[in-house]
Amino acid sequence: MNILPQKIEDLIESFSLLPGIGPKSAARIVFYLQKAPEELSLALADTLVGAKRGIKTCSQCYNLSDEKECYICQNEERDRSKILVVEDALDLVAIENTGFYQGLYHVLGGIISPINGIGPEEIRIKELLDRITSQTISELIVATNPNMEGEATALYIQNEVKKIDIDLDITRLAQGLAMGADIDYTDDTTIQKALEGRKKL
Amino acid sequence: MNILPQKIEDLIESFSLLPGIGPKSAARIVFYLQKAPEELSLALADTLVGAKRGIKTCSQCYNLSDEKECYICQNEERDRSKILVVEDALDLVAIENTGFYQGLYHVLGGIISPINGIGPEEIRIKELLDRITSQTISELIVATNPNMEGEATALYIQNEVKKIDIDLDITRLAQGLAMGADIDYTDDTTIQKALEGRKKL
Repeated sequence: MNILPQKIEDLIESFSLLPGIGPKSAARIVFYLQKAPEELSLALADTLVGAKRGIKTCSQCYNLSDEKECYICQNEERDRSKILVVEDALDLVAIENTGFYQGLYHVLGGIISPINGIGPEEIRIKELLDRITSQTISELIVATNPNMEGEATALYIQNEVKKIDIDLDITRLAQGLAMGADIDYTDDTTIQKALEGRKKL
Repeated sequence: MNILPQKIEDLIESFSLLPGIGPKSAARIVFYLQKAPEELSLALADTLVGAKRGIKTCSQCYNLSDEKECYICQNEERDRSKILVVEDALDLVAIENTGFYQGLYHVLGGIISPINGIGPEEIRIKELLDRITSQTISELIVATNPNMEGEATALYIQNEVKKIDIDLDITRLAQGLAMGADIDYTDDTTIQKALEGRKKL
């Protein structure tokens, strides 16, 4: 038998389906919404519906967009000779938030992962190669995550780009200690990468 | 300038207003919803609206309910001589989930907290005293949290109940070590309570 009204149980269930939200946090959110003014729930419901309508991917870089091209590709001030390759738009947002990169992006929409049945043709590598051949690009920054799948995808992209006869720098983001890291808590590979990439002061 | 379409930014903003969800988790949820079938977003929007409509508090115990009385108060098999007092319905759910308690509840809807301007009249203490006087109750279990505000509220309730000339046991939940706790990581007060409440084997 239910402890709570069915509608409340349903809402807790719906929230707990979202990533990073367990049943306890879901219940906490639902009780918060019950105490809060109705407008908050209605606004969230509205934006939920709105965000699924009229959102597509940018025809150039595959970032989320409500127009043919996303805000970044439309921006005339961006450096059009650089493409930074990311796994998904979340990574794009993280890099964009630093305000440090002024070039264009390419969102792969996934990562090569044989264990999950995702091969090179399931992600937007062909689209990336098309962009490189049709536009004048001087640097391709492959910013996939520094883990096994990210490294494999970077290697695959590197090999495919080399097959095209084109003058282009391919780079990877530097690896090393994170800001504020504790060396004695850092894993061996990271310490090794930090040593290899050491800089003269 | 926005990185993402306004509707997506709005949805991230809406999610990050919820308790326990920061901007990063909000973005993660929104990108997850963008990849997921539209039905998931629409179902969440529907349940959000549904849960705010037709949900009231139980006329007896102030648990959430879609009828005059909640499922617990309606249940003929519950022990009507016991009332367990909780701060909010989340605590009620936690206790109910153990399946160990068969009595009734009383949801205070808050805790006495002078620092937040919440006095005894802001929470449902008067309603509790009314229930005690009008019904035949043999035990009142004051299950407010074992912190300063919870203890103060329990003490206040105890004093108010004693003013009524009625034969009634007032109890508090036992304090001591949590299951799986590490004694050397446990705070002094908890160890003290565990010692005071020690049981003969």
